[in-house]
Amino acid sequence: GIFFFRNRHALGVSVMHHYTTFSTSLTQFLLSRYFAFCALFVFLFLVIATYNRDYVDSMPPDRDLSKEIEEYAEVCGSLTSDLEGTGPERFWIYFVTPTYVRPQQIPELIRLSHTLKLAKNVHWIVAEDSTSCSPQTAEVLRRSGMPYTHLISPMPAYFERFLRKPKGVSGRRAALQWLRHHLKDLDSQRAGILYFGDDDNTFDLKLFSELRKTMSVSMFPVGLVGDYGISSPVVKDGRVVDFLDSWADSRKFLVDMAGFAVATDFLMSRPSAIMPYLPGHEEDRFLQSLDIELEDILPLADNCTQVYVWHTKTLERDRGVIQHPKGWRTLDTNLGSLYEVARYLGLSDVNASR
Amino acid sequence: GIFFFRNRHALGVSVMHHYTTFSTSLTQFLLSRYFAFCALFVFLFLVIATYNRDYVDSMPPDRDLSKEIEEYAEVCGSLTSDLEGTGPERFWIYFVTPTYVRPQQIPELIRLSHTLKLAKNVHWIVAEDSTSCSPQTAEVLRRSGMPYTHLISPMPAYFERFLRKPKGVSGRRAALQWLRHHLKDLDSQRAGILYFGDDDNTFDLKLFSELRKTMSVSMFPVGLVGDYGISSPVVKDGRVVDFLDSWADSRKFLVDMAGFAVATDFLMSRPSAIMPYLPGHEEDRFLQSLDIELEDILPLADNCTQVYVWHTKTLERDRGVIQHPKGWRTLDTNLGSLYEVARYLGLSDVNASR
Repeated sequence: GIFFFRNRHALGVSVMHHYTTFSTSLTQFLLSRYFAFCALFVFLFLVIATYNRDYVDSMPPDRDLSKEIEEYAEVCGSLTSDLEGTGPERFWIYFVTPTYVRPQQIPELIRLSHTLKLAKNVHWIVAEDSTSCSPQTAEVLRRSGMPYTHLISPMPAYFERFLRKPKGVSGRRAALQWLRHHLKDLDSQRAGILYFGDDDNTFDLKLFSELRKTMSVSMFPVGLVGDYGISSPVVKDGRVVDFLDSWADSRKFLVDMAGFAVATDFLMSRPSAIMPYLPGHEEDRFLQSLDIELEDILPLADNCTQVYVWHTKTLERDRGVIQHPKGWRTLDTNLGSLYEVARYLGLSDVNASR
Repeated sequence: GIFFFRNRHALGVSVMHHYTTFSTSLTQFLLSRYFAFCALFVFLFLVIATYNRDYVDSMPPDRDLSKEIEEYAEVCGSLTSDLEGTGPERFWIYFVTPTYVRPQQIPELIRLSHTLKLAKNVHWIVAEDSTSCSPQTAEVLRRSGMPYTHLISPMPAYFERFLRKPKGVSGRRAALQWLRHHLKDLDSQRAGILYFGDDDNTFDLKLFSELRKTMSVSMFPVGLVGDYGISSPVVKDGRVVDFLDSWADSRKFLVDMAGFAVATDFLMSRPSAIMPYLPGHEEDRFLQSLDIELEDILPLADNCTQVYVWHTKTLERDRGVIQHPKGWRTLDTNLGSLYEVARYLGLSDVNASR
């Protein structure tokens, strides 16, 4: 593709060069047309920039927003069990994972379930951006054998219009809502730790013992984030004093979604704390809504000198399209069942022309 | 980008249209120049195609090759332990993972170690494409608590010249060499199963109980492979009769690296079996070197109707470059130690201008 583009470019320059010797007025016409195009792009850019800026700055405050947009959440299934082991660190980590249907979804959830199973005493809250409970996700959760809550909470249609969509926010909001409700029913509200862990990130088992030290809010380094390749609080004399993160914008807490945890009793003491639908600012605004200052943050992972979580990303790919091989029938081979499974797992469609 | 391309295109057509009315000879010149470009590209394409074809077809046979190129392998460390559990399926799965240094490497190995730990009775052979033993990889292996062998085996310099390099082959060859040596020392050569599992793929725990059924060679579906989104044998009446895979080329066995397993006693009965340095053809040629036919293959995963392994790929990214924040010193904050760890883990470099 790029070669033909260059080819065309050379051709264009050559034409322009010779052409000016024949007709200046036509050149001017061409130039004006060129400028018209440029002007159009500048105009479009300004429209888009204004449109998005408006969205971030003048969006109604969160409580009013909830009246304007319809939020919907549902519990698909839940499994609780008794805590394992003994000792003071015997409480739940509520691990919140927003997810959505895509060809990579099921393997992502499966390999994350392996980590969480080894971590022990993790209650996995999986919230799907969907209007219906996915049986594939339910199966992964059931098979994991660990305590879980399966939620659905689609992104409100209001946000479809924006270029940069607040991904996973509706899921995390539903998880917060479920957690508050769940904790109210428990005897002790000092019941655990809230942590947001996406389905493609990577978690060292050491992270989980660190998380259990959280008193109100804790923070720690995250690898593979931004231009620095790492995001972390700056810690001096055992206290968080600043942040090392390549992207500041107007944020107060420069922290990745996977870089902090909140004790559930502290969360319950902040009944209005909520995550807003603001792409890139979800962490910061959620932490601000907890009404904390830098001195309230407990630095973990050896005073923020170790990396126990990585913002790995899995390559997205489209569903495949299977071309049925000639000479074999779906009924007397494995192909019929295999096509069904490939469809069920969201891996492939089958070419209808078979 | 695409908009400017269209812009230029419209401009070119407009110029061409008016131009023909002025000078036909110049148009011919332009056209001939255009054809010259085309001819150049066709020529380049033929050169590249010939170059690569030559490489695949006329490369010396494997044993001669080993005299021409220098192969080097070394054992960095190894840990063995007793088999867990009881029953007839109590033997080792030798899980071969080639790997190389990159920012994602350590998290990849960590999360794979979680799966392998749960799978039980897995001996993890990790072979690095490197001339020196990486202490970071050694640490992951040691901390996993599972039996492992840590190898290094750099790709021979001979292959650096090729556009499409045989990635991971030197590691798998070293692993095969180590395994043959290791099995010779054991009392029973029916000691386990050989499986090639890359560090970014995803493995359901069900895969491992399937692998243990392998008699000589077994095969099963792999998700997220090729244009079909899946690769699998075609099974009729319990026998492998063909393959469903979007990429055929001249391969006999259309199977992904993660889509087959070999019993170690069968491997030992084929002393000349080896994986050649042929990008895209490694699996096929290795299986051919085992001297098997379709009827020797045992279809697993419910007669190849279930997906227990996925060819997930992790997004590659460059090392970050940390800009040291003004106002903080590395010595009296966490930053000095954190920079060291970020460098050690291959996540980031630090801007020298601090």
